[in-house]
Amino acid sequence: MNLIKKYYSPTNSQLGVGGGGKSVSVLSPATVANVVCGFDILGFALSNPNDEVTISISDEVGVQIINQDDFNLPTDPEKNVSGAALLAMLEECPDVKGFTLISKKHIKPGSGIGSSAASAAGPVVAANYLLGNRFSKEDLVRFAMFGEKVASGVKHADNIAPAIYGGVTLIRSIFPLDIIAIDAPELYVTVVHPQIEVRTADARMILKQNVLLKNAIKQWGNIAGLVAGLIKHDYDLIGRSLEDVIIEPVRSILIPGFNEVKSRCKEAGALGGGISGSGPSIFMLSKDEETAKSVEKEMISIYERIGLDYQTHLTTINQEGVRLL
Amino acid sequence: MNLIKKYYSPTNSQLGVGGGGKSVSVLSPATVANVVCGFDILGFALSNPNDEVTISISDEVGVQIINQDDFNLPTDPEKNVSGAALLAMLEECPDVKGFTLISKKHIKPGSGIGSSAASAAGPVVAANYLLGNRFSKEDLVRFAMFGEKVASGVKHADNIAPAIYGGVTLIRSIFPLDIIAIDAPELYVTVVHPQIEVRTADARMILKQNVLLKNAIKQWGNIAGLVAGLIKHDYDLIGRSLEDVIIEPVRSILIPGFNEVKSRCKEAGALGGGISGSGPSIFMLSKDEETAKSVEKEMISIYERIGLDYQTHLTTINQEGVRLL
Repeated sequence: MNLIKKYYSPTNSQLGVGGGGKSVSVLSPATVANVVCGFDILGFALSNPNDEVTISISDEVGVQIINQDDFNLPTDPEKNVSGAALLAMLEECPDVKGFTLISKKHIKPGSGIGSSAASAAGPVVAANYLLGNRFSKEDLVRFAMFGEKVASGVKHADNIAPAIYGGVTLIRSIFPLDIIAIDAPELYVTVVHPQIEVRTADARMILKQNVLLKNAIKQWGNIAGLVAGLIKHDYDLIGRSLEDVIIEPVRSILIPGFNEVKSRCKEAGALGGGISGSGPSIFMLSKDEETAKSVEKEMISIYERIGLDYQTHLTTINQEGVRLL
Repeated sequence: MNLIKKYYSPTNSQLGVGGGGKSVSVLSPATVANVVCGFDILGFALSNPNDEVTISISDEVGVQIINQDDFNLPTDPEKNVSGAALLAMLEECPDVKGFTLISKKHIKPGSGIGSSAASAAGPVVAANYLLGNRFSKEDLVRFAMFGEKVASGVKHADNIAPAIYGGVTLIRSIFPLDIIAIDAPELYVTVVHPQIEVRTADARMILKQNVLLKNAIKQWGNIAGLVAGLIKHDYDLIGRSLEDVIIEPVRSILIPGFNEVKSRCKEAGALGGGISGSGPSIFMLSKDEETAKSVEKEMISIYERIGLDYQTHLTTINQEGVRLL
């Protein structure tokens, strides 16, 4: 295709991927990253909430963005998470001029459940479908990371990978990118989003650059236990391993009610949980729906008492990632 | 038993566990701990070499030690690794007066392949058999850790757990003790022991108390990948995850030839490897015996050229741990 491009610039219709109105809609899921002891490496996709994204191939060059929600996100594609991801994809599609994107977000930006990853992942998966699935999932993660860079200044993949692959994913290494699907057992997820603002930049700033070796050893014992527990479907081991001695003690102070949520949810039967992403959402894992409902009740009672606005989600792990509508 | 003990001290024969000459012999295996990115938490047992240990119940109080090798180890049970482990066990056996131990060591002390763990694990497994297997494997690890304390001043379990459980073991937590068996695929292990002295105390001293968070994140990505690779029997993932950015760069400078051994063995097809325990032994993992033999040839050629005495072992992972003869 690069050779062809040297001599003439074909229209999309000449290449058979033309913007004749064909469009694809997908649901792009919320995700939990920084899963307790798995800071920067472990994430999973949620069955709910999801953003809705519709993509069509366009004869105009670049990306046109139409927002159908109240979040007032930028429509300049270079400053828009979805736009940046699609522009990165276009760089490797010499036969495509552009895309038109209609976005209806349901995942609140800044909630800590991967709103920007959903904005980045959904469009590239939908666009890839329109292009005959020419790119691998790993390629799509690579494109979507350009969207994350627009959102937070950092090209991280721990929300994007589960959004695209579904299930639980491990980012063993970011450069070079090495994504490993972890086959987890059925888990119910309860999320509470206390509606305060925790800026990702602040959450990053308060982390210390150095950690004690003895704490790092505890952490890698726990992440090793958590991965073993997930793959072996050993709920007790998962529960015992959900401990973070490095990030949570520092970041949880930015989230009012955190310690109480954690202790009361565990008393209510949750296996464990912690900060979702860089907060302020808190997630808890449970073995069954009934426990997950009790956990939700505890969360509600705590934020009702504190008097902070909040939103809860009671859901499961989404095993397929972004899905076609 | 404690109640009875208040009033009279029964002889062993009154309790039916008497020292009537019944004895048990076991092979107690060498082990590799600090498996690359699994510092302090991951270890595995080797099919060879093994120590030979024979235990009988005695009517004399305490532990009598008979050494049948040339290592000149102490016979005072409180200063002897096997003795300290057996004394800890006796504390929980009010019906037993003592043990007699005959020890024939083949694993060189100070080699870095768990010589002290073999001395601690073999006797307690053998004694437990004589006592009708009244203790769990976890209890036996707990007793054997008293032996490790005599050897190095620290009650660690990362060699003892694989010696007793066999296979690959994860110490998720040391206090409270949480040992997880990791079901690994068939692996060949090549070990070279360059015969220099690396004191465990020195190897500990040169470690820094603080590590960079970004390196800790790399390390827990790798240990998570390694555990996933082992359980999923994914050799490529095992190989990619065998990377240690924290301990090896510091400790490897104590081992002449380390970098060359590692790079040439990987070129010869090894999945990867690193320092065994706190050194000076170096181990390499391979998928098949032929590769493991090529790896051994590389090790031999390097230490022949350097002019250091060395010993090699070409073996597999021992799946059963200490075994009865």
